[in-house]
Amino acid sequence: MTNDVRAIQDDYPDDFAWCYGCGRLNEEGYHFRTVWNGNNTETIYDPNEKHIAIPGFVYGGLIAALIDCHGTGSASLALHRKNGFEPGSEEAPPRFVTGSLHVDFLKPTPQKVMLKAVGTIEEIHPKKWKVTTEVFAGDTLCAKGEVVAVVMPVTFAVTN
Amino acid sequence: MTNDVRAIQDDYPDDFAWCYGCGRLNEEGYHFRTVWNGNNTETIYDPNEKHIAIPGFVYGGLIAALIDCHGTGSASLALHRKNGFEPGSEEAPPRFVTGSLHVDFLKPTPQKVMLKAVGTIEEIHPKKWKVTTEVFAGDTLCAKGEVVAVVMPVTFAVTN
Repeated sequence: MTNDVRAIQDDYPDDFAWCYGCGRLNEEGYHFRTVWNGNNTETIYDPNEKHIAIPGFVYGGLIAALIDCHGTGSASLALHRKNGFEPGSEEAPPRFVTGSLHVDFLKPTPQKVMLKAVGTIEEIHPKKWKVTTEVFAGDTLCAKGEVVAVVMPVTFAVTN
Repeated sequence: MTNDVRAIQDDYPDDFAWCYGCGRLNEEGYHFRTVWNGNNTETIYDPNEKHIAIPGFVYGGLIAALIDCHGTGSASLALHRKNGFEPGSEEAPPRFVTGSLHVDFLKPTPQKVMLKAVGTIEEIHPKKWKVTTEVFAGDTLCAKGEVVAVVMPVTFAVTN
């Protein structure tokens, strides 16, 4: 089970662990957790009742956020592994930002069904990784997505 | 000001007013409201402190949700107008779902700055509309997006 496996977000430095989507320190957020499953990545999530489009269906913004954070998390897992590390090592993983996000909504996503995002990762530049993601509700493929994730610029925190 | 103008979401039928992004009946959601501004559409939103990527910056999932709901809202405004109606008329507006969503994140989006989504609408099929959106934080263009919005199938509510 995903929750028993150490996720990349468990190792993000504290300063970068506040994301509403995947930050372990953001009390109100989704707490997405992304792990390896063979050469693919996986994020499992159980949507709550407020994140609906219409009653009975998950809202698209949650699917988009799941694909987004799953993308940056997957890229972080991949570059960390390329650098010789796995989640749980003492080395902090690299943190990515999203360059672009694309989502094709294939079917309405039912509520009260566990969601699973499955990612396939491709390095397209040393600092830029493409993550293709399929989102399943149970066995049903509900959305496909693509994220281009970019290593977080060192200036990110000082541009505000 | 946008908040003084009747938005399309103000007129969504109650059964379709629960979206976490733009549903007026979802107490915990964003309550995005989309209005005409000439031939363009506009959604203004003031992000709160929990929807961050890292402290000081808005998280991408909120930007994606804003572009998503602004897209379906804009398409609804446009088809409603094509049918001879404006927000506030007694006729319920058509409700759209998102076929696809694309977001290019151009710059980190600072917090504590009002966001404005500006949409340009194009009919590509009687039941399918493309909405191109620019998201500004103050005067700074932070993201560009595109939504293909599709008239909600009548079966939507019974496929769950």
